[in-house]
Amino acid sequence: MVSSPSPPAGQIFVDIHTVLRDGNDGIASLRDGQQPIRAGAAGGGSSGEARKPMPLLVRQISLESGIAVLDTGKEVKRASSGKAKADNRVLSRNGKSLGGLSATGGDAAHRKGDFNIFRTKSTLGSRQNSLLPSRRENRPDLHCANGAPGSAGMGDRVTDSVPAGRYFAALRGPELDQVRDYEDILLPKDEVWPFLLRFPIGCFGMCLGLGSQAILWGALATSPAMAFLHVTPDINLALWLIALAVFAAVAVTYTLKCIFYFEAIRREYFHPVRVNFFFAPWIACMFLAIGAPPRIAPKLLHPATWCTCIAPVFVLELKIYGQWLSGGKRRLSKVANPSSHLSVVGNFVGAILAARVGWEEAGKFLWAVGLAHYLCVFVTLYQRLPTSEALPKELHPVYSLFIATPSAASIAWKAIYGEFDAVSRTFYFIALFLYCSLVVRINFFRGFRFSMAWWAYTFPMTTASVATIRYAEEVPCAFSKGLALSLSLMSSIMVSLLFLCTLLHAFVWRSLFPNDLAIAITRDRSGGTRSHGKEKRHAK
Amino acid sequence: MVSSPSPPAGQIFVDIHTVLRDGNDGIASLRDGQQPIRAGAAGGGSSGEARKPMPLLVRQISLESGIAVLDTGKEVKRASSGKAKADNRVLSRNGKSLGGLSATGGDAAHRKGDFNIFRTKSTLGSRQNSLLPSRRENRPDLHCANGAPGSAGMGDRVTDSVPAGRYFAALRGPELDQVRDYEDILLPKDEVWPFLLRFPIGCFGMCLGLGSQAILWGALATSPAMAFLHVTPDINLALWLIALAVFAAVAVTYTLKCIFYFEAIRREYFHPVRVNFFFAPWIACMFLAIGAPPRIAPKLLHPATWCTCIAPVFVLELKIYGQWLSGGKRRLSKVANPSSHLSVVGNFVGAILAARVGWEEAGKFLWAVGLAHYLCVFVTLYQRLPTSEALPKELHPVYSLFIATPSAASIAWKAIYGEFDAVSRTFYFIALFLYCSLVVRINFFRGFRFSMAWWAYTFPMTTASVATIRYAEEVPCAFSKGLALSLSLMSSIMVSLLFLCTLLHAFVWRSLFPNDLAIAITRDRSGGTRSHGKEKRHAK
Amino acid sequence: MVSSPSPPAGQIFVDIHTVLRDGNDGIASLRDGQQPIRAGAAGGGSSGEARKPMPLLVRQISLESGIAVLDTGKEVKRASSGKAKADNRVLSRNGKSLGGLSATGGDAAHRKGDFNIFRTKSTLGSRQNSLLPSRRENRPDLHCANGAPGSAGMGDRVTDSVPAGRYFAALRGPELDQVRDYEDILLPKDEVWPFLLRFPIGCFGMCLGLGSQAILWGALATSPAMAFLHVTPDINLALWLIALAVFAAVAVTYTLKCIFYFEAIRREYFHPVRVNFFFAPWIACMFLAIGAPPRIAPKLLHPATWCTCIAPVFVLELKIYGQWLSGGKRRLSKVANPSSHLSVVGNFVGAILAARVGWEEAGKFLWAVGLAHYLCVFVTLYQRLPTSEALPKELHPVYSLFIATPSAASIAWKAIYGEFDAVSRTFYFIALFLYCSLVVRINFFRGFRFSMAWWAYTFPMTTASVATIRYAEEVPCAFSKGLALSLSLMSSIMVSLLFLCTLLHAFVWRSLFPNDLAIAITRDRSGGTRSHGKEKRHAK
Repeated sequence: MVSSPSPPAGQIFVDIHTVLRDGNDGIASLRDGQQPIRAGAAGGGSSGEARKPMPLLVRQISLESGIAVLDTGKEVKRASSGKAKADNRVLSRNGKSLGGLSATGGDAAHRKGDFNIFRTKSTLGSRQNSLLPSRRENRPDLHCANGAPGSAGMGDRVTDSVPAGRYFAALRGPELDQVRDYEDILLPKDEVWPFLLRFPIGCFGMCLGLGSQAILWGALATSPAMAFLHVTPDINLALWLIALAVFAAVAVTYTLKCIFYFEAIRREYFHPVRVNFFFAPWIACMFLAIGAPPRIAPKLLHPATWCTCIAPVFVLELKIYGQWLSGGKRRLSKVANPSSHLSVVGNFVGAILAARVGWEEAGKFLWAVGLAHYLCVFVTLYQRLPTSEALPKELHPVYSLFIATPSAASIAWKAIYGEFDAVSRTFYFIALFLYCSLVVRINFFRGFRFSMAWWAYTFPMTTASVATIRYAEEVPCAFSKGLALSLSLMSSIMVSLLFLCTLLHAFVWRSLFPNDLAIAITRDRSGGTRSHGKEKRHAK
Repeated sequence: MVSSPSPPAGQIFVDIHTVLRDGNDGIASLRDGQQPIRAGAAGGGSSGEARKPMPLLVRQISLESGIAVLDTGKEVKRASSGKAKADNRVLSRNGKSLGGLSATGGDAAHRKGDFNIFRTKSTLGSRQNSLLPSRRENRPDLHCANGAPGSAGMGDRVTDSVPAGRYFAALRGPELDQVRDYEDILLPKDEVWPFLLRFPIGCFGMCLGLGSQAILWGALATSPAMAFLHVTPDINLALWLIALAVFAAVAVTYTLKCIFYFEAIRREYFHPVRVNFFFAPWIACMFLAIGAPPRIAPKLLHPATWCTCIAPVFVLELKIYGQWLSGGKRRLSKVANPSSHLSVVGNFVGAILAARVGWEEAGKFLWAVGLAHYLCVFVTLYQRLPTSEALPKELHPVYSLFIATPSAASIAWKAIYGEFDAVSRTFYFIALFLYCSLVVRINFFRGFRFSMAWWAYTFPMTTASVATIRYAEEVPCAFSKGLALSLSLMSSIMVSLLFLCTLLHAFVWRSLFPNDLAIAITRDRSGGTRSHGKEKRHAK
Repeated sequence: MVSSPSPPAGQIFVDIHTVLRDGNDGIASLRDGQQPIRAGAAGGGSSGEARKPMPLLVRQISLESGIAVLDTGKEVKRASSGKAKADNRVLSRNGKSLGGLSATGGDAAHRKGDFNIFRTKSTLGSRQNSLLPSRRENRPDLHCANGAPGSAGMGDRVTDSVPAGRYFAALRGPELDQVRDYEDILLPKDEVWPFLLRFPIGCFGMCLGLGSQAILWGALATSPAMAFLHVTPDINLALWLIALAVFAAVAVTYTLKCIFYFEAIRREYFHPVRVNFFFAPWIACMFLAIGAPPRIAPKLLHPATWCTCIAPVFVLELKIYGQWLSGGKRRLSKVANPSSHLSVVGNFVGAILAARVGWEEAGKFLWAVGLAHYLCVFVTLYQRLPTSEALPKELHPVYSLFIATPSAASIAWKAIYGEFDAVSRTFYFIALFLYCSLVVRINFFRGFRFSMAWWAYTFPMTTASVATIRYAEEVPCAFSKGLALSLSLMSSIMVSLLFLCTLLHAFVWRSLFPNDLAIAITRDRSGGTRSHGKEKRHAK
């Protein structure tokens, strides 16, 4: 029984998943939140309770009734697929309700077919011909037995872009990655999804973290200010190779996701926080180009490198900044969140790379674009308008992105205009202050679930370290060198810790890729069934 | 019958224009929206229907019943002046209702008197002495036959400044120039108003467009970067003379409006979008001064030129920026819209002119003022706060103003500080990016009614072209020169197209100056009649 | 009888303070707002009215009943302390209700004990042992005679930080220093509080005003641009000594308040406007250091001066900017008000001092921090978001703070980067425009009650004068020198006037330190009594 925060007296939320085996014997599993509690008699009682006529404000009763197909393989597929809404009138919640009651066979196929809704449209058409009809027949709208109108609705619910407001309404957390309790999702929560569906765009954050480390150690090895450390350039090489390997792996995997589950990627793209991570692959690319070891890369890279990396960034920017300015509901005052910095920092990284390929003017162009939008994002985030709901009360690693943009702007100015002058200094010092501002807050890394996106939150520290090295070159004194050293160490330690954490999650706890619930929210609150909405209106 | 959006059950708005001449003979014309449909018998039927209790969703049935007095002259003055509100109780809507019922004669005078409400107060008093009393007697509040209290209300309704919120409530469109369906206006919609009343401040946009073209072709002729084009300075001279002539014509016409219909100008001034166009005349002036052909103007203009042009701009700025900061309801978060750029760009144009008269310090002052307020406007517009309702979902020519300010800032910096350095570049590149951002949106010029204000939306393109020429002087390469050339061509083509469009509207379709509905909205939703408001409250 | 603005028909607000003398003879004082109107019979009538069973929406009935202890000394202590809420059920409003009815003796002790709630916690425990129990017994929740639960609530009400929203809800005016009519406060309004409780943090504003004058006259004496005035450095010395003396006096007094009434200081700290004045002492310190006469101070001050002054500023900034960015409800879009400039200007003043001690890099750091947050504050204040309620419709001296920050930024840039270049000019001209913008508004100093905080509003004028002197050094012409001279005179005259005003208030009208009502608001609207809130809910 999941109750909303502070429900008014008399309002009862019931969320029951009952597995009725062999039709009559009820082994009910009453879920509270995410943890399934198995209760035999109690479950039967509550299912009986659920069948009683409820008062008006009953919101959520899901009664899972179906034949359990317990797969003993790696993935625990529980027979919680068929969901029913037992009210006075039995209503379909997410279109798959009570399928098991009428059609006892073909349920395994039904289960697998669920994930097809996120498949790329063309492959869906060509490959799933045999599966789809049966799936569609298994999804009858109970009031119209033929089910033909319902099937169209299901397809629409996935394909149509989810409006920005829905993401804010259905999800929570600073990364909008947790589904609110009362929300229904399109895919089963208690089943492990296919690997590709669980592989979010945020994984490119790892490439950002490692790529920037490669740059940092390159800078430590070559900077005259840090010559006293005698860092060998081999660390740069090693880190760069690791970063390259990880990037290749992540890129290949995500390309596969792109091929097979394009609909899932579309939903990531419409996610107000995730969309900013679409800049990550190209920024990671640029990091690899910038951090390329001197013995591999020429002094001046070929401009084609820059063009290749910056083209997708530029197109994305035209799209996203245009949305802020003129498009529909995705206004900046609504969607601004710390991860918006990712959509700005690309410009400054691009400017640095432009200097490396010798196209300073192009770099200055990017720097100007970055400045204009950084201003907007910075002021908007500092204001914390009442309309931007995504910002959490507590601090979160995502706030470290605040450091990234001014640091990168500072380095980029030095790279394109040739001197670490007042502008560079101003941006660098802003980054430094924000760094202080975050460091003094003790509850920084507390109480948040690890995710691959955290990797993206390490590169700001690294960028700040590189900026400090550049500053130490300009103002070579004990303080600046010490600061550069300590910031570099901090960022390296952080990356090491995160690397360890990732390994533990990947191989020990096997929880590196949890179900990516954020992409599976329903398009409407009512889960797409019109009758449900009607009922709600009626209740009022 | 006009029903408000989502009207409460039982609330019926009826808007019937009945001119009952000779008391009994009714020739009704049933209007829906703007297009009058003349229907003799049907009109009679609908007038009967209008008295019946109507179903809820009927939106607009205006019943004009009267004998058409079709004027065959230039201005079609139709006898739709008397407006009646036929409800169960017959109520006056805008104070002129059913005048014809009691006073059958003197209606032509009554008609003309309508426009007097926008006349300059002194002329109203001196000239209309003979007309006004009759007009006032023709406007009886039906419940108090003497009509004396009503007349005061009518005068107030025009003279008192309309609050900013009313403009947003009663008007729509990105230029706030279309009246919402359910709104009543003070002047007859279906009659052609006096020319001066239809001559909006936006006509100065034409001067902006032509004046900036003169500057552009002057720059093309004299800039060393564009010397390869061998542009003759005669084009500059010709364009400048045209611009000067147009400016003179528009200025004289608007001065006449100022003399005869000062109240209409006051209403334009309180219009949240229009007020920004009050900068246009002075900016156009400055354009003429800057673009003056070398063979006419001396190298260094006289400072008096600058003083004359900038004084009104400065006064307006003190007024408008002060309103943003401290005055009443016209807060920036509410009134910000792309046309606000017009109130900022004047500073930068003034700075350019200041450099031309040799007062660099004054130019730097204006540049700083411009920068500060540009920042505010830019960030506010990018945020698209939920409070700024005027911004349309679709793109509109008005968005091109986004390009104007950074372009002008870039040119101005070069003019006053003498070099196209990092600041100039940054502003120029911001303008360039915004240009790209707008160009890639295909629905740019789609589905919007032409208006004279569009001319104001060409000068940003021209300014961007001039800035590109300045950039090409600094960075003379094939790319920059090609860009300068293509942007110049684009802006010239656009101006030519608009010129053609204006000619067509002016002489072929004779629709260049439609009724300027935006200035004639009522001051209160209820149209000023207290009994109407009372009725609404009663209905709730 | 205080009625809310536009109360719906049928809703009656009654606020009656009746002083019942000798138990039966009712000399009622019916208050309207702040002015007590003594009305014998009428008051009795309304008190009778108040005793009648009221309809549901009665909100506020305060019936003061107690024995008058009319002190004939300097402080008029009226016996209006006991406040009762006469409804059907008699409810305690602020915990001191009806004390006089049951316990006619010991009322003087009761009165004095009231102020103890703002005492420093440790002293409260050690010294007031004898008083507190009696006080607590005097505050019975009438429904539970033992009063134990109530006493805990009272302690909490003072100690717990008052949420930002409460200050906005309970207070009004641009400085949030006036209590709204319907609000109850913890301390008696009609009694003069202990001096230390009436000594607000805003008194440091006087140090700001005098310290900046010392700097101004120092600049006038030493600047080559103003050499034509032949100002003697003795004025600087004299002013500096006065400023030092005043600072010492204010600092000692406030330290005493800190020792004895720490809870009052905590409440000042949580006040959204007052918190910015916590920067004032340290800025005043820095002013003294910067303005130190050459014959006393060395050319280059010791860096320790800077460290001492800037450390508390930096800690406060980390706290306050962090609140804007990430903490709870004190988001910038909510708490921004002109006094927020005080929290920014410290950075620039610190940068100037850093240049005086020879730590330019530290100055550049502060300047960058100042710039970033100035941007946010400036844009937010210019936007006047609908969420920032504190901004008044009319202008107020507090708006002069708008001038302070850009002026200080301009001077600081010159100090740390060594030249009055484009950046300095830009900031200086922004300040100049804002100065103009405020000067042209005639209702600048109209209709506002004098307070010590006004002193803080003189230093922006002085800072602008100093910036003008620096500008006149860069651009030595008649206009700039004349401007510098006139601005200096204006600021000196303003300070002189304010000095006179302060003396008059202090010694003639003896109203320099009125009761500081803002710190004594209740933590909840209902004044802490749970039964009251319950009743309100019931009424709905």
